[in-house]
Amino acid sequence: MPFSERVTRLKSSLIREILAAAQRPKMMSFAGGLPAEAMLPKSEWSDMPRSIGQYGMSEGEPQLREAIAVQAQGLGIDCDASQVMIVSGSQQTLDLAAKLYIDKGTEILLEAPTYLAALQIFQLFGADCLTVPLLSDGPDLEALRQRLEQHSPSFAYLIPTFQNPSAVRYSENARDAVAALLDEFGVTLIEDEPYRELTFDGVSARPIAGRLKKASWIYTGTVSKTLMPGLRVGYLIATRDLFPHLLKLKQSADLHTNRVGQWQALQWIGSERYEQHLLELRSFYRTRRDAFEAALQRHFADLAEWNSPQGGLFFWLTLKDKLDTRRLLDRALAQNVAFMPGEPFFADPDDNPGYLRLNFSHIDPERLDEGLKRLAAVIRETQLSQAA
Amino acid sequence: MPFSERVTRLKSSLIREILAAAQRPKMMSFAGGLPAEAMLPKSEWSDMPRSIGQYGMSEGEPQLREAIAVQAQGLGIDCDASQVMIVSGSQQTLDLAAKLYIDKGTEILLEAPTYLAALQIFQLFGADCLTVPLLSDGPDLEALRQRLEQHSPSFAYLIPTFQNPSAVRYSENARDAVAALLDEFGVTLIEDEPYRELTFDGVSARPIAGRLKKASWIYTGTVSKTLMPGLRVGYLIATRDLFPHLLKLKQSADLHTNRVGQWQALQWIGSERYEQHLLELRSFYRTRRDAFEAALQRHFADLAEWNSPQGGLFFWLTLKDKLDTRRLLDRALAQNVAFMPGEPFFADPDDNPGYLRLNFSHIDPERLDEGLKRLAAVIRETQLSQAA
Repeated sequence: MPFSERVTRLKSSLIREILAAAQRPKMMSFAGGLPAEAMLPKSEWSDMPRSIGQYGMSEGEPQLREAIAVQAQGLGIDCDASQVMIVSGSQQTLDLAAKLYIDKGTEILLEAPTYLAALQIFQLFGADCLTVPLLSDGPDLEALRQRLEQHSPSFAYLIPTFQNPSAVRYSENARDAVAALLDEFGVTLIEDEPYRELTFDGVSARPIAGRLKKASWIYTGTVSKTLMPGLRVGYLIATRDLFPHLLKLKQSADLHTNRVGQWQALQWIGSERYEQHLLELRSFYRTRRDAFEAALQRHFADLAEWNSPQGGLFFWLTLKDKLDTRRLLDRALAQNVAFMPGEPFFADPDDNPGYLRLNFSHIDPERLDEGLKRLAAVIRETQLSQAA
Repeated sequence: MPFSERVTRLKSSLIREILAAAQRPKMMSFAGGLPAEAMLPKSEWSDMPRSIGQYGMSEGEPQLREAIAVQAQGLGIDCDASQVMIVSGSQQTLDLAAKLYIDKGTEILLEAPTYLAALQIFQLFGADCLTVPLLSDGPDLEALRQRLEQHSPSFAYLIPTFQNPSAVRYSENARDAVAALLDEFGVTLIEDEPYRELTFDGVSARPIAGRLKKASWIYTGTVSKTLMPGLRVGYLIATRDLFPHLLKLKQSADLHTNRVGQWQALQWIGSERYEQHLLELRSFYRTRRDAFEAALQRHFADLAEWNSPQGGLFFWLTLKDKLDTRRLLDRALAQNVAFMPGEPFFADPDDNPGYLRLNFSHIDPERLDEGLKRLAAVIRETQLSQAA
């Protein structure tokens, strides 16, 4: 075995397989987190200067960094443009954070469930994952205090606003309490907010990074959910003690983020046109959520429980009769239905059966009802065969 | 210290500092490896479909992978599109390779000198660097055999065509001999070829990857030196045993490469227009090289020796009286001249004083003579003050 020890922790390609299957022509997919194709805005490129073709700065384009700092200040994050770095999508922030913090056996703190691609990269680097159960309005604060008293995690990775997969949005109280605990124990926060702007009730809560008084933090966002994921333009904002290290890690990863996508993002962020686009997006997704929930009521009322998401792209279902939802996959795919099993969103998948993540933004509304009906039937059949 | 052990190996930002200084308005810079601004082609964007804004595949755009496979087959590399992955510039290939192979203490084999950003990422992951001296037509083959007999490096990282920094192009014999040795000892090859197309004498030699019979390999290229570095579009081609691992590592690093840049690259690769652009580029850089060499003859004939580069973007100077060229930097920058000291291109910088890397592609021809004159004066002064 000539490979690194780390490669033994490269996860199987279950998710890649699901997403590949989801591309098949007749498939009804609740699996991915793709924005609706119809809502990709028309982009203009004719004014882009030729000099954008040249190498750029590892930090990112100065004007874009400035625009993102202004936006973040508006959310109550105390920062300036020198703390902003443009990255190749939010996922890269997680890669840089893993490099900055994680050796084999390094303890880190995560929500349960949490974003599965974060789990993958953190575990690839050898992290030892401590978890705190996520309740309907934030983490279990008792459990959080206990973990912090008994361990010294290198960072806490949290997704406080419309979490992927659970759609949970932390309450004001939860945000304050989490900030106070991280300050008390001096634990660095990594706050991941790809879905913040996709709010359906208009409520906006200040990021936890803006509530910290002492602890270091990395705040990360992206234009992937609101503009065009194909640009691969995300950003991180970090406290001054962390930024120089992250910058060197960015440079060694890919020199800098593509300037063409950065230029396009700059045409939108902070503009009137972008605000208008966000309004349309929220309205479009709210309508899809409502239709999805109505169909769920028809087919899943006896099978599962869920909270109605106030933002983001997902319903998170808790089955009333637990079963390993990975076992549903083959049968569902054979019925041309793709979904995401809940287990891979947990650091300890086998101990957490019985959840499904269903994306409501991407599926053709005309096929929604049929898709959920088939999925419900697959669950019923599997539960019956399990009981037998 | 809450960071990973790896971070203790993050290099000082000497190079970042030089490149930042090189941006100052009056600076005459021989430091970077930037393409000439005047040679960035005009790019058209109006035909790009809106769907390019959506998420794409981790492997890259199918048509672009196909075009790159065809190009590679033309160079004598036995491959098909399924072995091609689009990455965010060549640097990302090095990051993925580091993740795939390097634990702390993993032995790898490098040329001396070698590309400094490769050295940085490999050392960041904890590699133990074995080196083979580079002669004018390839590596010292005796030394290479000796290293392979006495060690088991996880891979050999080589830049056989117009190496950065030395401009060395391996001879046909050297290519065959290196391939035979890697096959004999079963050592994986990473072959980095950003400069292949920038040839001034029209000679094209088959890549070493195309000469291997048994050993695994990763071949890596980019459009950064021939089209637009700001696109951040590079590619790797790998043997089938390596590709699936590299693909998972790519997915966990940034999901996929930006599709906007990929779309633009596809408009060029394999086209008549691209061939025409490459002809113009070669002619432009050949002229700059000739002018540079004439100025070198005027100011450096008594100070240094060099080989005339047959491609690429650099002259590599060997000082007749050795000194640590990092000591020249402050004085040179004060004279508004930026250059790259040779030491950071070696795994053991302190043991390799007396080299300078000078970029000839970027500087305004009208300031070339003055820049080299000032740099020569700085060297003379420093040598005098050292002798005193």
